[in-house]
This record gives sequence, C-alpha cells and structure tokens, in this order.
Amino acid sequence: MTALPSSTEQLSVAIVGASGYAGGEFLRLALAHPHLKVTQVTSERNAGTPVPMVHPNLRSLTNLKFRKLADLEPADVIVLALPHNSAARQIGTFEALGQVIIDLSADFRIKDPELYAQYYGEAHPAPDKLAEWVYGNPELHREELRGATRIACAGCFATSVILGLYPLLKLGTVLPKDIIATGLVGSSAAGASGSDASHHPEREGSLRVYKPVGHRHTAEVMQELPGNFPIHLTAISTPRVRGILTTIQTWLPDGYSERDVWGAYREVYGEEPFIRIVKVQKGIHRYPDPKLLDGTNFCDIGFELDVDTGRVVLMAAIDNLVKGTAGHAVQSLNIARGWDERAGLGFAGLHPA
Amino acid sequence: MTALPSSTEQLSVAIVGASGYAGGEFLRLALAHPHLKVTQVTSERNAGTPVPMVHPNLRSLTNLKFRKLADLEPADVIVLALPHNSAARQIGTFEALGQVIIDLSADFRIKDPELYAQYYGEAHPAPDKLAEWVYGNPELHREELRGATRIACAGCFATSVILGLYPLLKLGTVLPKDIIATGLVGSSAAGASGSDASHHPEREGSLRVYKPVGHRHTAEVMQELPGNFPIHLTAISTPRVRGILTTIQTWLPDGYSERDVWGAYREVYGEEPFIRIVKVQKGIHRYPDPKLLDGTNFCDIGFELDVDTGRVVLMAAIDNLVKGTAGHAVQSLNIARGWDERAGLGFAGLHPA
Amino acid sequence: MTALPSSTEQLSVAIVGASGYAGGEFLRLALAHPHLKVTQVTSERNAGTPVPMVHPNLRSLTNLKFRKLADLEPADVIVLALPHNSAARQIGTFEALGQVIIDLSADFRIKDPELYAQYYGEAHPAPDKLAEWVYGNPELHREELRGATRIACAGCFATSVILGLYPLLKLGTVLPKDIIATGLVGSSAAGASGSDASHHPEREGSLRVYKPVGHRHTAEVMQELPGNFPIHLTAISTPRVRGILTTIQTWLPDGYSERDVWGAYREVYGEEPFIRIVKVQKGIHRYPDPKLLDGTNFCDIGFELDVDTGRVVLMAAIDNLVKGTAGHAVQSLNIARGWDERAGLGFAGLHPA
Amino acid sequence: MTALPSSTEQLSVAIVGASGYAGGEFLRLALAHPHLKVTQVTSERNAGTPVPMVHPNLRSLTNLKFRKLADLEPADVIVLALPHNSAARQIGTFEALGQVIIDLSADFRIKDPELYAQYYGEAHPAPDKLAEWVYGNPELHREELRGATRIACAGCFATSVILGLYPLLKLGTVLPKDIIATGLVGSSAAGASGSDASHHPEREGSLRVYKPVGHRHTAEVMQELPGNFPIHLTAISTPRVRGILTTIQTWLPDGYSERDVWGAYREVYGEEPFIRIVKVQKGIHRYPDPKLLDGTNFCDIGFELDVDTGRVVLMAAIDNLVKGTAGHAVQSLNIARGWDERAGLGFAGLHPA
Repeated sequence: MTALPSSTEQLSVAIVGASGYAGGEFLRLALAHPHLKVTQVTSERNAGTPVPMVHPNLRSLTNLKFRKLADLEPADVIVLALPHNSAARQIGTFEALGQVIIDLSADFRIKDPELYAQYYGEAHPAPDKLAEWVYGNPELHREELRGATRIACAGCFATSVILGLYPLLKLGTVLPKDIIATGLVGSSAAGASGSDASHHPEREGSLRVYKPVGHRHTAEVMQELPGNFPIHLTAISTPRVRGILTTIQTWLPDGYSERDVWGAYREVYGEEPFIRIVKVQKGIHRYPDPKLLDGTNFCDIGFELDVDTGRVVLMAAIDNLVKGTAGHAVQSLNIARGWDERAGLGFAGLHPA
Repeated sequence: MTALPSSTEQLSVAIVGASGYAGGEFLRLALAHPHLKVTQVTSERNAGTPVPMVHPNLRSLTNLKFRKLADLEPADVIVLALPHNSAARQIGTFEALGQVIIDLSADFRIKDPELYAQYYGEAHPAPDKLAEWVYGNPELHREELRGATRIACAGCFATSVILGLYPLLKLGTVLPKDIIATGLVGSSAAGASGSDASHHPEREGSLRVYKPVGHRHTAEVMQELPGNFPIHLTAISTPRVRGILTTIQTWLPDGYSERDVWGAYREVYGEEPFIRIVKVQKGIHRYPDPKLLDGTNFCDIGFELDVDTGRVVLMAAIDNLVKGTAGHAVQSLNIARGWDERAGLGFAGLHPA
Repeated sequence: MTALPSSTEQLSVAIVGASGYAGGEFLRLALAHPHLKVTQVTSERNAGTPVPMVHPNLRSLTNLKFRKLADLEPADVIVLALPHNSAARQIGTFEALGQVIIDLSADFRIKDPELYAQYYGEAHPAPDKLAEWVYGNPELHREELRGATRIACAGCFATSVILGLYPLLKLGTVLPKDIIATGLVGSSAAGASGSDASHHPEREGSLRVYKPVGHRHTAEVMQELPGNFPIHLTAISTPRVRGILTTIQTWLPDGYSERDVWGAYREVYGEEPFIRIVKVQKGIHRYPDPKLLDGTNFCDIGFELDVDTGRVVLMAAIDNLVKGTAGHAVQSLNIARGWDERAGLGFAGLHPA
Repeated sequence: MTALPSSTEQLSVAIVGASGYAGGEFLRLALAHPHLKVTQVTSERNAGTPVPMVHPNLRSLTNLKFRKLADLEPADVIVLALPHNSAARQIGTFEALGQVIIDLSADFRIKDPELYAQYYGEAHPAPDKLAEWVYGNPELHREELRGATRIACAGCFATSVILGLYPLLKLGTVLPKDIIATGLVGSSAAGASGSDASHHPEREGSLRVYKPVGHRHTAEVMQELPGNFPIHLTAISTPRVRGILTTIQTWLPDGYSERDVWGAYREVYGEEPFIRIVKVQKGIHRYPDPKLLDGTNFCDIGFELDVDTGRVVLMAAIDNLVKGTAGHAVQSLNIARGWDERAGLGFAGLHPA
C-alpha cells in the first residue's frame, strides 16, 4: 500500500466498538477525512441501529448502521475501540481482516508485558505481538510511525503528561526532586456507559479526586519519558464533559532560567503542527485552557517558574477524545500513510464556548 | 394529638424510601426541625448502610442506618417517599403504624380515581381512601391542613404552575385564551436512579424537551385551579440539578392593567411566609431565578404584561425538592400540628451560588 | 465578479468589528473557507493586537492583527459586525470599499423603516438603502440571494422562530389561536462586553427571563413569516454559553394530524442541507438539543402534537453564533457567489460535548 | 461583655462592605444567628438601596438598607469586609465604634509586617496593632479566641491548606520532601466585581491556572503551620461558583503507614464540630467534594497513601465563603463569646446539588 500516491489514496475504514466515545470520535473525524471512507462500524449492543441514534451529531452525515463484530469484513484500516484487554485477545482476527490496525485501548502501548501485568492486573494476552506496535504519539515517534501498520494510540492523561514534560526531560539535566502531575479530567474519559458516579445530579458540579495514587497511565508515562525520574500521577474529575488540564510540578537545577525552559520547548516543538506554547503576559487567556480545545487536536502547553525556589509549574491541556485519543490516532495514521499530517484535523475550536 | 402543647411537642418520624432524593431531602429538613426526631429510615437496596453513604451531606449529622421496610416500627409520623402507586397499594400497613402519614408520591393527590387512571395508566389501588387526604399545598389548603393526619404532598412542576396562576384565576375573570405553562426542570426531578439520559456526558449542558404534551401533573393542576381553563404543560430539562423555572403565558381580558395583577397577587399572597413577588425595575435580579432558591422553601413569583396585546407572562421559581416536595410537606405538617409554619424551613438560600 | 468561475474564486474579506463574538465567529469560519481569504480585521479597542489575544482558539491559525476602522482598505467582501445602528450610519464608507457587504447587525433586516423605529427606538439612518438588501435566510430567500451583494444576516432568536414555524404557516391554513415562542438563550448572545449580569458568579447556573415581552426580533419574525398571525416572543437566559432552544406553541385547525405536520416540514425542508427534522421515538436524543450543535450550521427541528387539544409544540435548536449569525451569513454568501452551499460549514458538532 | 450570660446575649452587628460576597455571606449567617442582630450594613456604591437588591437571597428576610461608611454608628461587633489594606488604614475609626472587630481581609493575619509587605506589595499601615489580633482559625487557635475582641479571619485557600496539613505536620516528623498544594477554586473567590475574565462566556466551563507561583496565602500558610517545611501553592480556577478542593502532595518518612495518618487526624480533629474525615472504601463519595459543602461550615478532609513511594495525597474541601471566610468568622466569634460553637452554622448542605 505504501506505493500508492498519497495525494489520491482513499482507504476503507472499519471501526470496531464504534458506539463508545473513542470510536464515535474516530468516526466523526474519519467521515470528514479526505483519504478515509468509513465502510463498517460495529457495536454488539446497537447492531442494526443507524449510527445517529447513538451519535446524534452525525445526523444526516452518515447512513451507516452498526453491525456485530461477527459480521466484520475486510477493510484497509481497522480501528479498535474496545475495552482494555479485549483487542489483544482477538488480535489474530483483526490481523486477518485489515492491513493497518489502530488500537485505541491500552493493550499494545506498554512494551514490557510485566509492567502491563502490574498496572492492568492480568497477564498480557499476546506478549509476542508487542514489538510490532508503534506508540501512537507523533511528537515522540514520528519517524517510527512512517509506514507503520500497527499503531497503539497513547492514553489521554498520559499524553498530557508526556507532551508537557518531554522537552524538559530531553535536556538530559538531572532534575533534583520528584515530579507530580495532577490531571483535571472531564466525565467523557470514563466512557459511554453510565454508573452511579456518572448520574447527572451526583456528578454535575463535582470536583472529586478519583485516582489519587496508582494511576495506570504511570506505566506509559515512565516508558516514554527519558531520564527515569519518579513521576507521580493524581487524577481529579471535573464538571466538564471533555478536556484535561494537567499541571506538572517539578524543580529545575540551580542556574536554569525561564529562558532555558522557553528554549527547550521551542526547540522540540517549534515545528509541531498541533502543539502551541501558551504563556502570555496579559489578557484572560494567559495559560492553556481545555475549554478552548474541545473538538481540536491541539495540545496547548504553558509554564511558569518560581525564581525563588526553582519550582516550575508546567501546564498541558488537550481534548481527551481528540489529541487524547482519536485525533492523535488520525494524526499518527496521516504520518504512517505519508498524507498531510493535518488532514481531517482542521477544526479550530470555538471561542467563546 | 392536637391537644399537645405545640411549643414542646416532639414527634418521632419514620421515612420510608429515604435513599431517594425526596426522602433524603425530608430527612435533611427533619434532622434540623425543632419538633421532629427521625427514628427510622428505610431503603431496600441500602438496608444496613449508614445514611451518609447515600446522603453524604449528612456526614456527622446522623447515626441512622437504613433498614428494610419489613422492619418498620410504629412512629408518630410516617413519610412515604416511594415510587408512584407503591404507597397506595400498602397504605393499610402504614395506617397501622403511624398517626400522621405524609405521602410524597402522586398516589393520593388526585381526588377523582378516573382522572388518576387516565394520567397514571392504571386503576387507583385504594380509591376509597382518597377522600381522607388533604392536598399538601399550604397556600390553597391551609385551613384543611390544620389537624390533618393524611397529607398528599403536591407535585413539583404542578406546584410552580398552581402557585403561579392561582391569584389570577381566583379573580373569577374569564380569561380569553388558553394558558401555556413551560417548565424548565433540573435533573434531580428524575430521581436518584441513573438512566442513559442522566449519564453526565449526555445530560450536562443539554436543553431537551422531555414532555412536550401529556404531562401527568396536568391532572392536579386542573383539579386545584379554579375556572376550569385549559392549561397546557410542557417540560424541558436543563443543565441544573435542582430547581424549576416555570413561565406561564396567558392573556388578560380587556381593561386589566398591571395594577390589577399586582393587586391580585398581593391580596392572595401578602401574608404568605414562603411566597415572594419578584418584579424589580433594575438590577440583575429582576425576576425569579431558581438558582437563588436551592435548599429553600420559597416560591418566587414574577410577571410582566404586554400592554399592546394583553399577554401576561407569569414566572414561578422553586427548588423542586423543597417547595416542590419535602419543604412543602414540612410546611404542611407544621400547619397540621399548629407549630410555627416556618419551623425547620429557615434556610435563606445562597448568593452567589 | 459573478463571471468568475466559482470553483476557483478566491475573495478577500475584511471583517469590521472582529473582536466581538459574531465577528470572531465569521473569522473562524472564513479562515477555513476554500473561497475566502481574510485580509483585514478591525477593532478600535484592540488595534495593533494579534487576533489570538482576543480569540485564543485561533492561536497558530492566523497572523492577522486588528487595525482601526479608519485604516480599512478595499476588499471583495466586507463583513460588518458592529453594534446596531452603527453600520447603517456609515454605510456609504463601506459601499465605497467593498463589492459585497454582509451586515450581521439588525440594521438592514427590517424593510419597513417605521417598524424599525418602533423596535429599535430611533429613526433608521439610511431608509433609502433598505430595498437593496436581501434578508440573509437561505431557506426562505435562496433565489434572491443568488448574485446578491447586500446581505442582512438574520437575527439569532428570530432564525429559530422563523425556521421552526415557516413550513406550518406556509400551508396557508388559518391557525385558530395565538403563537407563543419561548427561547432559551446562551450567554454569548449578549456579546463580548461584560456586565453586572454576566459576572460569572451571578450568571452561572441561572435561569432568568430577560425579555418576557416586547422582544425586538418580533419585527423580523412578523416580516418574514406568512399569514400575519400574532406571534409572541419570550426570551430566557440559560447557563449555556452558546445555543438557543426555542419551543413554539400553537394549535392546528381541526382535522390536522401529525402526518400533515410531517408532510409540511418534509416538503419545505426535504432538500435543505442544514435543516434536520429530529423526532425519534426512542433513545435519549428524541428532540433537538442545542448542545449537539455548538460550532455547526445546523438547525434541528422537532415537534409533538397533543391529539386531544390540537396543540402542537414545535422545537428549533441552533448555535446562535453559527446558524444564528456567522454561519447563516457564510451560507448566504456561498449561495450569492454560486459556491457549494456547504463550503466552510462542514463541522459536524461533538458528541459527547 | 464577657460577664453576660451567654445563652441570652444578643449583640448588635455592623457589617462594613456588606455588598461584596464575604460581607453578604456574613450577613446571611448573622440574620439567622441566635445571638446576633444586624443593625447596620455599609456600601459606598449601594448606599440607600435595600439589601435584597444586591443579595436577592435575602428578599423578605431583612429590611436593612445600605448606608455609607461615613454614617456608621456604634455597634457591639463590627465586621470589616473591605479590600485588602483598607481596613488597616482606618482601624482607629472602627476601634472607636465597636468592642469586637472581625476583619475578613488579609490586613491583620500576618504577624510579621515584613512578610506582609513582601506578599502584599506595600508597608503595613498599622504594624503596631498586629499583636492584638488573633488569627481566626478555631481549630488551631481556639484557646486564644476565647474572649478575643480582634479576630483576623483566615484566608480561604490558606484555610484548606492549613486544615489539611496541620495534623500531619504537628506530628513533628521531618518530612523528607517539599509539599505541593494545588487549589481548585470557584469564581466567587475573585469577588463581586466583574472583570474581563469573569464574563460568563469566557469563564464558564474554563479550567485556568491563575496563580501558578507566588500566591499571597503562602504567607499565612507558612506562619501557621509548624515545622517550617517548604510549601508551594498553585491556584486553578474552576467552573464552580463556590468551593475549593485542595490536593496536597507530600511524602512520609520511611516506616509510616496509613494507620499513622489516620491516628494523627483523629487525634487532632476527633472533637472538632466542623471537620470531617472523608475516606470511604466504596460508593461514589469516597473523598471530599466541595459541591456537598456549599453554604456549610464544614471542612472535609481525606487522604490516600501510595505505599510504594511514601507519597501521601491529602485533600481538603471547603466553601470558600463559609469555612473559608464568613462561617469561619462566625465560629471564631462563637468561641470568643462563649456561645455554642455551632450557633448559626447548622446548615447541612444539599444532596444532590
């Protein structure tokens, strides 16, 4: 397939588990993508139902109906939006049906099966396959992604931590203290299935720490970031539906200035199409704010330095379903196929919103 | 019981179905009420569990645990917070255990069993009992409530319509056109059990018409309001958790002025402790707003007249769980027992909130 | 200009008053439009400032800076996003600089200068120009818009009422009773300038009737809709930032059924690219909901009939800044230039959101 | 005054700056307080206006009108709710008019005038008075508060940090690493005056770091907490109106277990009427959530320990206007006068809300 001229290439796409929020978001992006044509969507619970009954934003935009996974037919690209562990258990089936496979779950992110077992509570179902997969973070793995046919989409909270910290840790400097990352996360991150905690009267307006310690994304954060520094994650739910704002607290070694931090981020992200450094002296939008990013593939990154103590507060904001999941996957696929990296990801976000 | 000196009377209270929002709200009010002592709360699903596990606002304020209904023991006052039809089917049980019974459901509101059947879809389980119950709306039934031992608490949306319209219809004037009442309702009105529609990512920020026609509260609205005018209800869900704002549109006969409307409302509600006429010429709080009423027993009522057409827009705001349910019930009980009508209902509401 | 081949046409655009919400939204849409190139944006208050300082969603997407109106140079299309009355007073200036003029204010919507004076409180500054302008509602004025060079963009609340009612009134049937339209409106409709009422602690979570009677959009609603029926508008602010949900209550003559209503809407809107009839029997998205439309140009319309009384409840939802303002304007311009009517308006909206 | 029998004591109260949110909240609490009678409220901007025009929750609950500060007459208790630096500059005036003075600003919190100057940017106007004032935190200063006539109400964010950390630091153990406190703060904390940032369309739904480093409350946090550990504050605005949720990250020395942390908090706070330890294994309310505390004087505190790293995540939630300001002040006054410490602070908070 890599021999096809990229400018006219059109690939068929099947989305497995398309009634969830991650699958639905990939579907939204794929329907407007110049090189993709969605031909199949599966959902066990909604088989036979037209897509807009589940994703009402797609009314008049697609005639697709959900089918059962058992009825899946071959497609150029298969996107897996299944619960953790489910994709890996059936990976052979998907390999037989598609050339390019994108997995939106955690199944193929962690290279070390023991680390996977430690954080996900069971042995990896297909450890021998792990080496075939590229971690779907374009900013860190752009070269590996070119021509890739197995893309393990990065986790949403992890993406905010990794993109927020990467330039600083890439400096190779020894940071003197621990790193703490606190993620403020919207309700869509918990998925499309309701729970007692997601009942609107209980969740609306609430600010709850839901994972103070032991967050699973620690595994991919530690795998991806250089330097092997201790990084501690805490996750708090917010009243928003989409979006993550992560603040990362750490300390610079003596002698580092704001200018050094600016330099590190500019050097690493200067050419990145979806990363913006947001650090403005005046006005009301001085630092990243996830509300400006709903529906977009941007990761906005800011920082502030406490010159008295060397403490630096990094901030990273994303839409958890786009740069945190489906948009990141589309960007990775664009790179893999040699298409315009921005293809299908042009939405600017709204102001006000 | 009416012979007891009201100032020192202390009644035991059992709340049946206390894990729901209506029962929980009665419990909150009763715990701070000078004449009530809650001795029992029931919940089939939470039997054995301390109350604060379900109602976390009551942490440190009660040591009660839920028990099963089968374990209910006698109490001076039994408050029924059960699903519709459930209280009426077992009413004999409760009559045997308590002297005063307050029902928060719709079971004993409608005096005409046929009307009940029409709106609630099944024959009334205890039609011969209906005459014993007083409709729990103090503003319309204060005299009947004195000494009452069977109180059928009014419905929340119905309360906003009835209190909003009553003075106007009591004038005895023939209104020339139909009356339309549109209720903007918070998510707590649907109860404590989750549904697909109440999943936070789906419900948050949404404005949905959920009952355009055929609302059940039409039955009690028609029963309570004089004049037999056609009144049409439409209910819309809002992003709020609590609160109802109802706008009522109707037309005055020729020759009526704003002064007449003011007069009608002042005359009927001038002495009411929980009704406030809100109609201010300037500032940002010119008309009723339910956000100011969370936790309070007030019904704020406003209006505006279109002098060119005779159209009058009435507005009524309440907290659906207080003046719309549990507070209305406490006020009714205060009247029934001859206590201070404001007892236990002193919370002013918050600003800002 | 109409001789240009539409598929390659590229017009320069100047947006006057681009720091407001309407102008900023036109800018967002124009930056991604295949036939438009924004060359100038004006703002008296922000002259010299880069656009993203005011519209942070456009970071990295434009290098434009605001200039003063006095520095405006010629452009193919001039978009006026000024306060009411301001565009009309200076219309000669804009006519000299641009070939196509789009006005987003109310200045050129009302054909009758006396009606304008009645609702806007002062004499129209350029009554002799009114006949040159086409009311920018593609669904009602598509033929007039072809080749038009003066487009008066429709008002947001008015658009929801007009699109909601038009097919029913076009039937030519005499409706037996008055029509009542209640609009639930987000805070962005009041514009980008703060007020006491828009201070977050006061506005957040509030439901306030802000215009019970006498709404200015009555003028354009009465002008545009056939039949000359009395239509009464009431506007209520909601906790949302964007979006309008309008419910319209009226009555059908005897003998009309749901089928007739369906027929009317299908016939009139069957081919419309941005109108969707939303009336579903099951699921949680049975009727229009503005939260699904943020950023989109759709108007979703639903209805329900009370067969006992003939009352029909129509519902229309839009994003006030897109289908209610800037998107409606882009769609009108697309028609005027013979471009694909959907150009630049492809955003599907988000789910969940 | 201390000789009066506390059970019948009734003090007159004047609130200076009562149109702001802190003063309004003290007013709300004082109106329902058994030992207080509010006789005067001042506001320069609203002099002559009835209180409910500014605080609409108090409609029908007070007939007071605002007066100018120049018209202030003597009162038993004078509550100062003025901008920082304003109270201290005029303190002589207030000393002449009242016996008990409660200051809700930061003016008399910091004992060291140099520290004050460092954080508040100007020399303290009355440094010789500082020693007279008791820091109004009942949990740390109960004994000093008894009989006190000068109470400097603690800051809101500071209160969450101080109450969250105090038992741990009181252990006297040397903590091995820095302490990081991240406060999620509602919009009411910025006060009743609007700004560009508080305009509803800009603020609603936003998550913005507004003070990453250098927060002023660092001064009182360092003053109040034992051990002189470095404590770093970061403040983030949330979409809520009220409430603060602060997460505090630190590390325990080797050998400490969850049991030790439990022990420390139980020992220090076991008898506190307004502190609740919230740490539950199951259900949806496992940790503190400020939405449950709106209007209440509770501080809910929770924690979780990462046994692998010794990291402890402490959480403290309060209503910034009650336990963070006016409620804390009332509780301090209750202690100062020997009244029931809970007087006037009985509101339980709402569920759901």
